[in-house]
Amino acid sequence: MKNKVSKRLFNVPASPIRKLVPYAVAAKKRGIKVYHLNIGDPDIKTPTVMLKVLKSWSRNPVGYSQSQGEPEFIDSLVYYYHKVGAKFIKPEDVQVTTGGSEAIAMAFFAVCEPGEEIVVFEPFYTNYNSYAAVTGVKLVPVKTKGETGFHLPPAKEIEKKVTKKTRAILICNPNNPTGTVYTKKEMNTLFVIAKKHNLFFISDEVYREFVYDGKKHFSILSYMKRMPEKTILLDSMSKRYSLCGARLGMLVSKNRDVMAGVLRIGQGRLSSGLIDQLMAAKLTKVEKKYFREVHREYQKRRDVLYAGLKKIPEVFLEKPEGAFYTIARLPVKDAEHFCQWLLTDFRLNNETVMIAPAAGFYATPGLGKNEVRIAYVLNTRDLAKAIEILKQALVKYRGE
Amino acid sequence: MKNKVSKRLFNVPASPIRKLVPYAVAAKKRGIKVYHLNIGDPDIKTPTVMLKVLKSWSRNPVGYSQSQGEPEFIDSLVYYYHKVGAKFIKPEDVQVTTGGSEAIAMAFFAVCEPGEEIVVFEPFYTNYNSYAAVTGVKLVPVKTKGETGFHLPPAKEIEKKVTKKTRAILICNPNNPTGTVYTKKEMNTLFVIAKKHNLFFISDEVYREFVYDGKKHFSILSYMKRMPEKTILLDSMSKRYSLCGARLGMLVSKNRDVMAGVLRIGQGRLSSGLIDQLMAAKLTKVEKKYFREVHREYQKRRDVLYAGLKKIPEVFLEKPEGAFYTIARLPVKDAEHFCQWLLTDFRLNNETVMIAPAAGFYATPGLGKNEVRIAYVLNTRDLAKAIEILKQALVKYRGE
Repeated sequence: MKNKVSKRLFNVPASPIRKLVPYAVAAKKRGIKVYHLNIGDPDIKTPTVMLKVLKSWSRNPVGYSQSQGEPEFIDSLVYYYHKVGAKFIKPEDVQVTTGGSEAIAMAFFAVCEPGEEIVVFEPFYTNYNSYAAVTGVKLVPVKTKGETGFHLPPAKEIEKKVTKKTRAILICNPNNPTGTVYTKKEMNTLFVIAKKHNLFFISDEVYREFVYDGKKHFSILSYMKRMPEKTILLDSMSKRYSLCGARLGMLVSKNRDVMAGVLRIGQGRLSSGLIDQLMAAKLTKVEKKYFREVHREYQKRRDVLYAGLKKIPEVFLEKPEGAFYTIARLPVKDAEHFCQWLLTDFRLNNETVMIAPAAGFYATPGLGKNEVRIAYVLNTRDLAKAIEILKQALVKYRGE
Repeated sequence: MKNKVSKRLFNVPASPIRKLVPYAVAAKKRGIKVYHLNIGDPDIKTPTVMLKVLKSWSRNPVGYSQSQGEPEFIDSLVYYYHKVGAKFIKPEDVQVTTGGSEAIAMAFFAVCEPGEEIVVFEPFYTNYNSYAAVTGVKLVPVKTKGETGFHLPPAKEIEKKVTKKTRAILICNPNNPTGTVYTKKEMNTLFVIAKKHNLFFISDEVYREFVYDGKKHFSILSYMKRMPEKTILLDSMSKRYSLCGARLGMLVSKNRDVMAGVLRIGQGRLSSGLIDQLMAAKLTKVEKKYFREVHREYQKRRDVLYAGLKKIPEVFLEKPEGAFYTIARLPVKDAEHFCQWLLTDFRLNNETVMIAPAAGFYATPGLGKNEVRIAYVLNTRDLAKAIEILKQALVKYRGE
């Protein structure tokens, strides 16, 4: 290996969501149906009004967009943020990113020198690890536990992790992979810690609309006016409008240096996709009904998943409150081995299920070894089948 | 500024191609027509067979693609590389990237640790500077000169720049911004140097098809079998098919560690755009006629531009051989000031021209101060008008 590639290239972790894909592909080649609960790639339809943009496409050539974002799309995003109550958001506060992923990368790069630290709550979205490796940032994890629904520990536990090198606290709310929706008190706690230690307070709110049981979501947007220089919102179109394949996200901040800097990075990659942006700009035309139905559907799925998993002996989870994921503890020693085995060795009526081993969602070695992340992105009928497969697979796996 | 953002954020340079955009916007607001020769965003039509994919779009939802690339698109790329003579290219040698930009970023990250060096030939594509800043790589420039059509200096001049920290030689062929097409002898020289010093040989061939006067293009693909572990091709769909807004590029290599590593980076950003990829996959259906016409058109534009610029007193340039750019030396002290003045202070029949100051295409401070990059991406009629504007502007500017 030496001398062939950089060492840092192999510090970028393989995605726990995607690394078992070759086994799923092989299973499908053997004629097995695979239920995909490994990845948050929903089956919910993209709004028709967006797809219509493709049907009536007339721009030719398909030229570059602006580096900050296509003006029509930026305007639609400002409309959206005003609608969710943040009337102080202006076009210059929004950088369009190529997927929420790029927003993460830009934020890490913008707030940290190499070797500096960001406090995160583990388990956390696995790709934070990827971008920490790419930008040379150290993620410092605060452990959260299944028993408390992965809610935050007391402030003093969090403050213990703040060092001279800490530059930011990053929360994902609603949380991927845990489904936790943080309370106002929890968000306040983070705000107070950030303020006290002069840290950036960064919130990844890709799942903002996916909050169940009438709970309220407390967005970082509520803190942005109070700490304009130190708050950053990371956001994405992917889940909100079932546009995962459109690669559009946003970085939102009132800090002019952050915005000027990330625009320079944006100029380096010229622009995000023009077609995707003009399609997504139709968000202003998406009916309320669309969200009501999507929300109802996910809550139903959450209920089916939670009830189903609770009935499997020795499976532990708390009821997820938002997003469309849950972390479940399984009665196995090595969840990664089990997940792979599901694809290579198990089938029920020629069907199996793909789920993501959870260890890759932790930064602390050894944690999450007996946990999996399940994305409830299938209809309730398929979801029920997948749970039954999981149940019977566990019996067989433990008997072997 | 201190404590607000990372220092490295401000090491990312503002794009010399795009930083004057606000002045162009302001000029347009004053009712002035601006001829854009600053950016390689061509007016050539995207192939109809690609746009038809939009009209007949049926996939719903618009879900993620694979991290390596959408299989149908990868297959079409393999078809393309076979057609240009590289029959040894297999699907696993191709990583689809979100624009050629991402291919640059991945390559820099893959071959260098922070602080390590890549030898480049200046002037060079300005965004190499952006990705050098983002990945912490040092670009070590070998100077090339307008008088020799920006062709390479002797091998010993290049080898002088190779240090213990050098990991790669990067060439852009045909060259952006100079329009130079390197000879077989030049490519051989780079290959021999790379082999001798165990360096990666990286070639950015985004403009492969844009070679004029019957000259032949010598691709890195000819060296890939001889040095499979140390050759990387950077490529893009943007110019070849007038798909700048579709954000699709490729990194091609036979080095399995490079491919495995960049795939992990690819997993971090999940996938490139699905719609863009399925549209671009139709490259297999683009008729030869399309390229013949595009080629003829650009050669004609090159001729108009070259003849026109040569007639302006004290403007110096050699005839560009490929791509659709040229670097011209102007009789001004500060080309950036002149480029800005064109937008703020000058007009001819209520029209002006936007060109890119060339200093940002150099790594050596002070070089390129009296040079501009001109992209001949407009039809010959507009191009002739733009040249006339430039000519008269120079007279006025020097008289002031």
